[in-house]
Amino acid sequence: MKMLRFRRNGEAQWGWLVGEAHVTPLRQLDGQPAGEVFPIGDVEVLPPADPSKIVCVGRNYSEHIKEMGNSFGEDLPKEPGLFLKAPNTLAASGAQIAYPSWSSELHYEGELAVVIGQTASKVAQEEALSYVLGYTNALDLTARDKQKTDLQWIRAKSADRFLPLGPLLETEMDPASTVVRTWVNDELRQEAGTEQMIFPVSQVVSYVSSFMTLEPGDVLLTGTPSGVGPLSRGDRVRVEVEGIGAPLEVTIV
Amino acid sequence: MKMLRFRRNGEAQWGWLVGEAHVTPLRQLDGQPAGEVFPIGDVEVLPPADPSKIVCVGRNYSEHIKEMGNSFGEDLPKEPGLFLKAPNTLAASGAQIAYPSWSSELHYEGELAVVIGQTASKVAQEEALSYVLGYTNALDLTARDKQKTDLQWIRAKSADRFLPLGPLLETEMDPASTVVRTWVNDELRQEAGTEQMIFPVSQVVSYVSSFMTLEPGDVLLTGTPSGVGPLSRGDRVRVEVEGIGAPLEVTIV
Repeated sequence: MKMLRFRRNGEAQWGWLVGEAHVTPLRQLDGQPAGEVFPIGDVEVLPPADPSKIVCVGRNYSEHIKEMGNSFGEDLPKEPGLFLKAPNTLAASGAQIAYPSWSSELHYEGELAVVIGQTASKVAQEEALSYVLGYTNALDLTARDKQKTDLQWIRAKSADRFLPLGPLLETEMDPASTVVRTWVNDELRQEAGTEQMIFPVSQVVSYVSSFMTLEPGDVLLTGTPSGVGPLSRGDRVRVEVEGIGAPLEVTIV
Repeated sequence: MKMLRFRRNGEAQWGWLVGEAHVTPLRQLDGQPAGEVFPIGDVEVLPPADPSKIVCVGRNYSEHIKEMGNSFGEDLPKEPGLFLKAPNTLAASGAQIAYPSWSSELHYEGELAVVIGQTASKVAQEEALSYVLGYTNALDLTARDKQKTDLQWIRAKSADRFLPLGPLLETEMDPASTVVRTWVNDELRQEAGTEQMIFPVSQVVSYVSSFMTLEPGDVLLTGTPSGVGPLSRGDRVRVEVEGIGAPLEVTIV
């Protein structure tokens, strides 16, 4: 099933996609539709999340670890390396994202995003996927220069609109057997199967929940494959995870 | 004026302290009381914040920078070094905080906290304090061992209940001329005047707002003075910023 979040008459709400061009609102996240159906053109499509927090895996594909010049010697990391993005980073598909005046090295990182559906605290890996609402496309925009120089990755990762997300949330897919692809101006830059993740989604959810209670609407980003690189004003970026059903597209201005 | 946040009949709301032992709810954050007055014993006092994000200054007192073994040579940092805590960290005064099973070095860091009252984006330092709702006591609990070994300070800073905050929010004080004190089991461990901050509150608000839009209810932590140290199960920690009017007190269990 494909879910989405939209604003209509000033109110943000969750809904289901009906056919290819209509939406129907839900009274509550895990509830049934209220019966009304609207053309998608009559609503403002929002990022399909409502997070109190956005928890991200920093290094989850070994080829990306190598390209960033990081090495763990013979050993891959034993636990997911995490960072946070704040909710001010959210932007919808179709957005125009301003290149920040204070950075000269804005990078794209295409990713599979996970949206939580039920409160999750200390859940076992075997149960973890049952706490997931669905999956969507994410663009983890990163000011690489500030990531290298600032104390922690706050300006680098949490500037306004640094997380385009969406447009659809697919509730039925297997996150361990899909493909993440990123294009810049229609040129393929990143492509990797999610079976290459060092830490699969189930392990990331379980690990995070071991010390942070996850809430419905929270977002996990699962790491970016190799192929990251710089953006320029005017670039069009597209991220599409196979099975989501629609790409995430933004323009850097 | 002293504000607080409380839950009554299941609903979390903002209010004013009336006298020393009563509260009156506000219809909206910047509005007038609704007229009802309740004994404080009849409500559950919550942390005086409702944050979409919690932004923290990592190094804002030079004596604390030295005690952590960090050095900037002759130069102090030019810009505030920031990190985030997620909202799952919030705990109320009076809480019992579980020592985490996965850390053997839980540290206290007493701090002055700032709660935002109005949406703030790209505000000048001269205007910054007008976006502040008020000030309160904060205990930035930190798993020092994980801070040293993890990729970023997520487990170290954002585990559940790692930010006791409150109980009162003072709206009228000057954040540049007060004193932060922390006691462990009634022994004074930290004491510093806020005029010693490398980056005053006005500069922190302005700097953060230059790339992150701050929202009403958001929290800024302004850094900890020297004197940080380890906690053990059974320790009672008290943080009191002069002028807030009531201490923050928690027990580690």
